[in-house]
Amino acid sequence: MKSIFYTRFFILLPWILIVIIVIDIDTKRLSVRNTASFYLSRLGNVHGSNATSLPVIYAITPTYSRAVQKAELTRLANTFRQVPQFHWIVVEDSNSHTELVSRFLARSGLRYTHLNVFTPRRFKRTGMPRATEQRNLALGWLRGHRSSKDKGVVFFADDDNTYSLELFEEMRSTRRVSVWPVGLVGGRRYERPLVENGKVVGWYTGWKADRPFAIDMAGFAVNLQVILSNPRALFKRRGAKPGMQESDFLKQITKVEDLEPKAKNCTQVLVWHTRTEKVNLGNETKRQQDSVYIEV
Amino acid sequence: MKSIFYTRFFILLPWILIVIIVIDIDTKRLSVRNTASFYLSRLGNVHGSNATSLPVIYAITPTYSRAVQKAELTRLANTFRQVPQFHWIVVEDSNSHTELVSRFLARSGLRYTHLNVFTPRRFKRTGMPRATEQRNLALGWLRGHRSSKDKGVVFFADDDNTYSLELFEEMRSTRRVSVWPVGLVGGRRYERPLVENGKVVGWYTGWKADRPFAIDMAGFAVNLQVILSNPRALFKRRGAKPGMQESDFLKQITKVEDLEPKAKNCTQVLVWHTRTEKVNLGNETKRQQDSVYIEV
Repeated sequence: MKSIFYTRFFILLPWILIVIIVIDIDTKRLSVRNTASFYLSRLGNVHGSNATSLPVIYAITPTYSRAVQKAELTRLANTFRQVPQFHWIVVEDSNSHTELVSRFLARSGLRYTHLNVFTPRRFKRTGMPRATEQRNLALGWLRGHRSSKDKGVVFFADDDNTYSLELFEEMRSTRRVSVWPVGLVGGRRYERPLVENGKVVGWYTGWKADRPFAIDMAGFAVNLQVILSNPRALFKRRGAKPGMQESDFLKQITKVEDLEPKAKNCTQVLVWHTRTEKVNLGNETKRQQDSVYIEV
Repeated sequence: MKSIFYTRFFILLPWILIVIIVIDIDTKRLSVRNTASFYLSRLGNVHGSNATSLPVIYAITPTYSRAVQKAELTRLANTFRQVPQFHWIVVEDSNSHTELVSRFLARSGLRYTHLNVFTPRRFKRTGMPRATEQRNLALGWLRGHRSSKDKGVVFFADDDNTYSLELFEEMRSTRRVSVWPVGLVGGRRYERPLVENGKVVGWYTGWKADRPFAIDMAGFAVNLQVILSNPRALFKRRGAKPGMQESDFLKQITKVEDLEPKAKNCTQVLVWHTRTEKVNLGNETKRQQDSVYIEV
């Protein structure tokens, strides 16, 4: 009798332990997740083993040397670091990789590609579209280094805008070309595509409403395969008019009626066209210089 | 004989299962960590079970309603979400909690305290120090809700600056009051405390070098216990001169020779005094209004 009791006890004990351990795992796993993952999981994002099957988001960021450059790249990287399956294509407007950007990217913790191309001085006049060469170089890189097997979404992420994490989860499902509202642009609180029955039927905009695609650079994403299957689609340098860059590019790869509206049928602002003030360095020359060199 | 075999089998089986489960937990726990945690661990940061023993960083952010407010809060939250043991004290300049900020904080994934106090109109003139009431309310909240048992560091994080993650790991070890350089301030590339033999001996600054503490609000942190043991230390409203807020506050709680220099003896810029351009909403009234209300 006694032996049966012991046998049962030793059979039951480990099973009870297993149950306790399994309950404990769930609790611990939660505590290990940091706030970022928590936040993302609340956005309905897939994590852990499934993350690698998500399409990669290729964010193309043209950048140029100026007082606020490192600050801007810092807060961009702080945002992008929380986006799963993210690949940052940073294109400097310079004749070679600058030390500042090289060092910054190497320490960023992000998957990245660092490119550079210098904008000829004749194209740097007011009214001329900016960052054309840089964006086109990034498109060329994608065409040279990615194939029909790669799942991805391409987005033009200027270095002074503000991006919510939700934006990236919206654009990730882009089948061909997707669109959404952009805040603080065109002299308005926001601009947005007008949507009826799931189709874009017009544009709520602050200026030049007659543009074929009255949308900011931060307002659309393109499936990687669309970029690859339209190898000649580029941003125009010659004959480009102010504000027409987006339209000139988009009309090469899509039609208005084929656009995929995101952000609840284009009724949510998830990206803002913020502009950082030019820094006053007026006291730099008036005063004594520092004895050490410090990167800013 | 057979019965003994079965008994042993059923006793051993669950133990083997336990071992398998325990090994599995460790593997899974690693895969759950996302890039943010990886990045932080490369900065020499403590994670996992040790994280809770870190002092809490209390970031005090005064904020007010304006076109770029949600954009600014969005990129701030994107940065703060990656700081372990972080508590955000957001103080609105308003008579009550605004819906925008309430909703934003509730969705932010951050530990936070939401306060508000309206700045009387007579204090809103040019040349008058800003956000005095908001910062003092936050200090009052800390004194009312934290005790001598709590380990923490208090930092004044204005909502338009740019913060690197490294900054928070530097300030976390603040014993009394710590200081470091601030980029893009005072009409210079940066301002910084001058350090000799581990002590602050002067200030490299763009203006008013004769201030007792020639430092920006973003350039120092205070141990929570120093805030609690100096219950009358506050930001001055009456008689406050422009640029003297920091000095007026700091001289109530410390002396220049006791400051703890951070960021490699104050030779690294880890925070930038960026300013966001005021938004042009000139086309908002000229054009037709949208049929739906969209928060920006």
